[in-house]
Amino acid sequence: MKKVKLGLLGLGTVGSGVLKVLRQNAAMIKRREGLDIDVGWVLVRDKAKKRSVEIDPSVLTTDAQAILNDPEVDLIAEFMGGEEPAFTYIRQALRNGKSVVTANKEVIAKHWHELEPEAEKSGAGLYFEASVAGGIPIIKTIKRSLQANHILKFMGIINGTTNYILTRMSEEGSDFQTVLKDAQRLGYAEPDPTADIEGLDAKFKLSILSTICFRNMVPLEHVFCEGITRVTAEDITYARQLGYGIKLLAIAKKNGNRIEARVHPTFIPLTHPLCAVRDSYNAIFLEGDAVGSLMFYGRGAGDLPTASAVVSDIITACQNEGGHHHRTGMDEGEVIFERNWISRYYVRMLVCDRPGVLGEIAGLFGKNGVSLESVIQTTRGDDASLIFITHEAQEQSMMKALEDMRGCDVISSIESVIRVER
Amino acid sequence: MKKVKLGLLGLGTVGSGVLKVLRQNAAMIKRREGLDIDVGWVLVRDKAKKRSVEIDPSVLTTDAQAILNDPEVDLIAEFMGGEEPAFTYIRQALRNGKSVVTANKEVIAKHWHELEPEAEKSGAGLYFEASVAGGIPIIKTIKRSLQANHILKFMGIINGTTNYILTRMSEEGSDFQTVLKDAQRLGYAEPDPTADIEGLDAKFKLSILSTICFRNMVPLEHVFCEGITRVTAEDITYARQLGYGIKLLAIAKKNGNRIEARVHPTFIPLTHPLCAVRDSYNAIFLEGDAVGSLMFYGRGAGDLPTASAVVSDIITACQNEGGHHHRTGMDEGEVIFERNWISRYYVRMLVCDRPGVLGEIAGLFGKNGVSLESVIQTTRGDDASLIFITHEAQEQSMMKALEDMRGCDVISSIESVIRVER
Repeated sequence: MKKVKLGLLGLGTVGSGVLKVLRQNAAMIKRREGLDIDVGWVLVRDKAKKRSVEIDPSVLTTDAQAILNDPEVDLIAEFMGGEEPAFTYIRQALRNGKSVVTANKEVIAKHWHELEPEAEKSGAGLYFEASVAGGIPIIKTIKRSLQANHILKFMGIINGTTNYILTRMSEEGSDFQTVLKDAQRLGYAEPDPTADIEGLDAKFKLSILSTICFRNMVPLEHVFCEGITRVTAEDITYARQLGYGIKLLAIAKKNGNRIEARVHPTFIPLTHPLCAVRDSYNAIFLEGDAVGSLMFYGRGAGDLPTASAVVSDIITACQNEGGHHHRTGMDEGEVIFERNWISRYYVRMLVCDRPGVLGEIAGLFGKNGVSLESVIQTTRGDDASLIFITHEAQEQSMMKALEDMRGCDVISSIESVIRVER
Repeated sequence: MKKVKLGLLGLGTVGSGVLKVLRQNAAMIKRREGLDIDVGWVLVRDKAKKRSVEIDPSVLTTDAQAILNDPEVDLIAEFMGGEEPAFTYIRQALRNGKSVVTANKEVIAKHWHELEPEAEKSGAGLYFEASVAGGIPIIKTIKRSLQANHILKFMGIINGTTNYILTRMSEEGSDFQTVLKDAQRLGYAEPDPTADIEGLDAKFKLSILSTICFRNMVPLEHVFCEGITRVTAEDITYARQLGYGIKLLAIAKKNGNRIEARVHPTFIPLTHPLCAVRDSYNAIFLEGDAVGSLMFYGRGAGDLPTASAVVSDIITACQNEGGHHHRTGMDEGEVIFERNWISRYYVRMLVCDRPGVLGEIAGLFGKNGVSLESVIQTTRGDDASLIFITHEAQEQSMMKALEDMRGCDVISSIESVIRVER
C-alpha cells in the first residue's frame, strides 16, 4: 500500500466533491489501486466558513505556501478557478517537483505552454482531465486509447448552460431571455452568465481539446467565438422544419497543416447523435482516420462528475510518480490557423414581397460563389421571410455575399446567419 | 526510438486493418510514441492466397510455433477468432513471456480466468480492448479513467448486426425476416446469422465488460440471453406509440454482492441517448457513483475501427514492457448472480373481445404482485389486442403471472413479452 499526502487548493463545489469521492470510495481505491490517499492540507479563504462536507479544521489553512513548500506533500490538486493566483501556485508546485492535478480550464488554456516545460524540468506530472467536459473521460482517452489515429475533426457540446437553454428553447418554443432567466433561477446559469452564453467557457475548452487532438498548440486568439444570444425561437422552428436542431458547438478540424477552431451556434441534423444530447449534458463527437466516428457523452459539470475526473487523475499521478510523466508530445512544423473555413449556412431575412426579389438575392449569393441548397419563402403582411440553406462555401465568400445584401434595397433585414454542419 | 518486433496471428479483416493502420500511421507512432513497430511474422492458413493488403511473402508462415518461439518477437497480436487454436496459442505466448493483444471475445469470455494468472506469472501483458465494442475505447477507459467510481450498471448496444436490423425494422416498418435477408445481402449479417441474432455475440462481450466493471468474474453461464428473432413490426409500432424504441441491450447491474447480467430486446424511451444509436453503431451507457451517466458511441466492428483499438493496445503493451502489466484486480468475496431481477415489462396479447376481460387479466397480474402502468386496447374482428406496460416487478413474479395467463380461457395468445428499461 502506497501512502500519498495530498494538498487541495480550494474547497468550493469541485473541492468538496473531491473530498466526498475520496472518502466514499477510499476502501475501493486502496483495494484496487493500492493507494492510501490522505488529504493533508486544504487551502481556503475563510477557515470559519460553514462547509457542505465535514472536515478536520486542523487541515484547513489560508496560507498557500504552507502547502506548496511542505516536503511531505506529494501532490497538489487545484480547484480555485480563475487565472490568478491559481497559475502562480501551479507553477510553483511543479517547480517544487510536486505533480499537479487541476480542473482549471482558464489556466491550462492560457498557460499550458509555460507549465509543460516546468513539469518536464522537474519531472512532476501535470494532469487536467477535469478541465474539459467535466466527468467525461476525454483527454486521457485521446492520449492513451486513440494513439493509433490522426484525429481529423471533432464537434463538441462542451458548455452545459447553453445546451440547457437551447434544449428548453427547442422543446418549449420559448425565447432566449425567458429561458435564461429561468435557468438562472434554477441554478443552471450564473448570475452573470456572460462566460457561458457568449461562448468563452467553450472557447477555453476547445483550445485545450484541439491542442490534445492535433498535437499543435491552439492558442485562444486563434479560436473564433460566437455565443447563443442571437438565436431566436423562430430560428429553432425553421431549423426543425428543415430537419435540424441548433446546438452551440465547439468545432475543430485539421487538414494538412491547417487548423480551424470555432465556437458558434450550429445547425446539426436531427438524426446526428449530438442532436440527442439534451439538457445540461455534454458530448464530444470526433473522427479519427482509423476509428471513424466516436462520441463521448456525460456530465460536463457538477461536484461528483468533475470529482470523478479529478480523482482519476490523482490516482494516475500517484501511480506514475517515480515513473515518467506521460508527456503530450507536440508535432513539429508550422501550422496555419484557418479563418476562411468551408461551411454550409442558414440565412433568414425579411424582404419586400414582390416578384423578382428571390432572383435578385439568389444572384447576390451566386456572384460571390455561394450556391443554394434550399429556399423557403413565407409571407406575412408587407414583409416576406426568406430562409436559405447554402451548399458548402468559403466563410469569406459568405461574408462578402452578406455585405452585398446589406446594401440591397429589397432586403429589409438579415435576421440570422447560422453555420450548418453534418 | 524503441524497436519492437510483432507477430500477427491471422490476416483476415482485422489483421489486414491492423497492417493498414500500422503502415499508414507509422511516422506518427514513431514521432509521438517513440515506437518503431516491425511486423516480423504473420500466421496464415494459405501463403498463396490473394490479400487485400500488400505483404512481403517472406513474413508469412503457416507455422505458429515459428512465431511463438521466436525469441526476437516481443509481442503477439491475435485475430484468428474462435476458441481454438487461438486460446492455446495465446496461453503459450504468455508462458513464453510475450505480451498478447487480442480481439478475441470468445477466448477472453471463456478463458480470461486462466490467462490472467499466466500473464502475472511471466510478467507478460494481456490486452483485449478490441474484444468489446470494436473501436470504442471502453475497457481501458473503465480501468484507467473511471477508477474513482463504483460502476453501478451499464446498458450496451454491443452487436452491430442486430442494431442494424432493428433500426431498419423501426424506420421502414419492415418485418424481421425481410430485413435480415437484406442485411445478409448487404454484408451486415453473416450467411449464418445465429451468433448475432440470438444474442450470443453480445453475451461474450457482456461477460467481459461486466467483469471489468464490477471486478468480479461474470461467467457466461450466469448471463441470461434472448435474441431478437421474435421482435415483430407490430411491437415496434406499439413501442413508438408508448414513447419507446426497441434495442437489443446487454444490461448488467451490481447491487451489494448481487450481480445481474442479461441480453435481451428492450424497450428504451425515445428520449434516451441509446435510442439515437442507429444502424450498425454500438454504444455503451453506464452509471458510476461519482460520474453519473456516461455514454460511449462508435463503430463496433470493421477493419479500421477494430484496428484502432488493437494498435492502441500494441502501443500500450510496448510502453509498459519492462514496467508492470496493469493487472485488473478482482474484488474479494462471494457474489450472487441474480436471476430474479427487477424490471418493467411490455406484454402484448390477443384476448376475447367481451366485457370484463380486462379486469380478469389485470387480476392475474395483481395476484402475482405485478401492477400495471398503462393499458392500450385495440379491437380487430373477434380478437382484441391488449398491450400492457407494467410497473417494476420481479422477473419471477412476472413469469408466474404469464404462466397463470396461459391457463386463462379469455386469452387467445400471449404474443410478446419484452422488458422495459429507463
